[in-house]
Amino acid sequence: MTAALRDIQALRERIDQRLKTLYPEGPASLTAPVEYVSLGKGKRLRPLLTLITARACGGTVEDALPAAIAVEALHNFTLVHDDIMDHDELRHGQPSVHARWGDSSAILTGDVLFVLALKELRKSPAQVDRLTEAFAQGALAVCEGQALDLEFESRADVSLKDYMEMIDLKTGQMLGLAARLGAISGGGTAESIAGAGHFGLLLGRAFQIQDDLLELISDAGTMGKSLGSDLVSGKKTYLYLVAFQQAPDEVAAAVSAAGKNIETGVNLFRELLVKTGAREKAERLIRETVDSAVAALEPFGSGKADLLAFADIVLNRKN
Amino acid sequence: MTAALRDIQALRERIDQRLKTLYPEGPASLTAPVEYVSLGKGKRLRPLLTLITARACGGTVEDALPAAIAVEALHNFTLVHDDIMDHDELRHGQPSVHARWGDSSAILTGDVLFVLALKELRKSPAQVDRLTEAFAQGALAVCEGQALDLEFESRADVSLKDYMEMIDLKTGQMLGLAARLGAISGGGTAESIAGAGHFGLLLGRAFQIQDDLLELISDAGTMGKSLGSDLVSGKKTYLYLVAFQQAPDEVAAAVSAAGKNIETGVNLFRELLVKTGAREKAERLIRETVDSAVAALEPFGSGKADLLAFADIVLNRKN
Repeated sequence: MTAALRDIQALRERIDQRLKTLYPEGPASLTAPVEYVSLGKGKRLRPLLTLITARACGGTVEDALPAAIAVEALHNFTLVHDDIMDHDELRHGQPSVHARWGDSSAILTGDVLFVLALKELRKSPAQVDRLTEAFAQGALAVCEGQALDLEFESRADVSLKDYMEMIDLKTGQMLGLAARLGAISGGGTAESIAGAGHFGLLLGRAFQIQDDLLELISDAGTMGKSLGSDLVSGKKTYLYLVAFQQAPDEVAAAVSAAGKNIETGVNLFRELLVKTGAREKAERLIRETVDSAVAALEPFGSGKADLLAFADIVLNRKN
Repeated sequence: MTAALRDIQALRERIDQRLKTLYPEGPASLTAPVEYVSLGKGKRLRPLLTLITARACGGTVEDALPAAIAVEALHNFTLVHDDIMDHDELRHGQPSVHARWGDSSAILTGDVLFVLALKELRKSPAQVDRLTEAFAQGALAVCEGQALDLEFESRADVSLKDYMEMIDLKTGQMLGLAARLGAISGGGTAESIAGAGHFGLLLGRAFQIQDDLLELISDAGTMGKSLGSDLVSGKKTYLYLVAFQQAPDEVAAAVSAAGKNIETGVNLFRELLVKTGAREKAERLIRETVDSAVAALEPFGSGKADLLAFADIVLNRKN
């Protein structure tokens, strides 16, 4: 294990330690699912980004911990509600909150996670006002991203531009918020706060496209299944939209085939992604987006080393 | 129409005017239900309380408007989510959000209303920090109240004390928050802020018990139906709990009868409420609670006239 990874592990432990006391007192029907979701598996990427960014700005981990926990609670709020909407019964291999406690509990668990995020953020030792402004802005973006994602499932005319806007709101803005809160907490300059936000946003964009790509090239049965069900449900991804632009009839045929037999449909779709150049285009876009993300770190000078190591973790190059 | 009521009507119009622009831009799947629920029927009691309290503290309506709109949006967030959990298909005689747009949209509509409430509050011209603290505290209370309400439906051992705690969290704290935000916005003293919060809390408590009582003594078929379905679903009310304390077997028999024939069950229950003294006890508690609410206004001196007029409106004595 490298020094950078040992450091990440130590930060994760501090985050988990603090998450244990996120909601110490309250109705049992809320405290139990909040603890379940807060201490579940998951890489804690967003709070890690907050802490690493704060440090890169010259601040302390301690001062940025409330903001880090707020970001994780906000992220969990979206996961709990999204899982209800998407009928996802599993999260990190465990039953999702609504699968275990029912929809009503899951709605309320999400709601209270949102409130706890705000309350946690307000414990920050400085810049509470600016942190709260950024938090409200980021939370709105995430809700709007999820709304667009749901709208797109029933729309045939989703453009690549629409799609990029949606993933920026849903995924990018959350990582952007994590980095921005870290930079504010760490006493960063206006330039480093803006740079950090931009870095997080672009990293989130690259992450989302890579996630779709990994699903495609993975040999694992579960991955294929998930890709198949996305095809059947009409879920739009970058790869889907590029392939559809190039060969609408063949993509429609693959979707129709997946409705009858998932494996056949998925295989047809995989071939199409190579044939239409969608896969290559996605790989190029990921590289370019990561390059832009790294360029956004210019205000950090040599302090950006940890943020670069973090980018590698997000993009699954290290763990 | 009295001068006080004309004034209330003018304030309502200012509130509605502002609610029209609560969410001018965003995904259509969010802006439409947000507008629908924000401009629906309803008395705007909570934002009115905010404005009236601000004025009673010597502040202006204009300065308190962001806080008033925040309270209304927070209230609507709870209504939209509660209607999903309670399977209520109607709200103010119109289809509820989930009945019209589906559960997923309703979950997201509630979420975005919460964010909009926070963003609106942050537009307050002064005391944003204290307002946000009070807001977070109040929002947590409301979530916890709803959680307890759901827990109580499947619990046989709910005490009167448990019940009072629940309605204070679910109903009282929301009115208490409305009044507190008004007092803070209006530049009130520590005494008037605390007094206003206490007034709102007690008014909410009296309102909730009176609501249960009105449902009982109303002759309207719909009221009886609602009471009957509450009986069948095991919903605990103050009246139910007092009657159950005095005559558990007879209350159980009425509940069981309501399961077979709602009218028979409701009539049995009504008789029991008189016989056990539950109705008389409830009427006395409402009077005492209102007296305490009025006493909490002591720091306002002669400035409390409008707040007293407001209490009359809440308690359905005027409209």
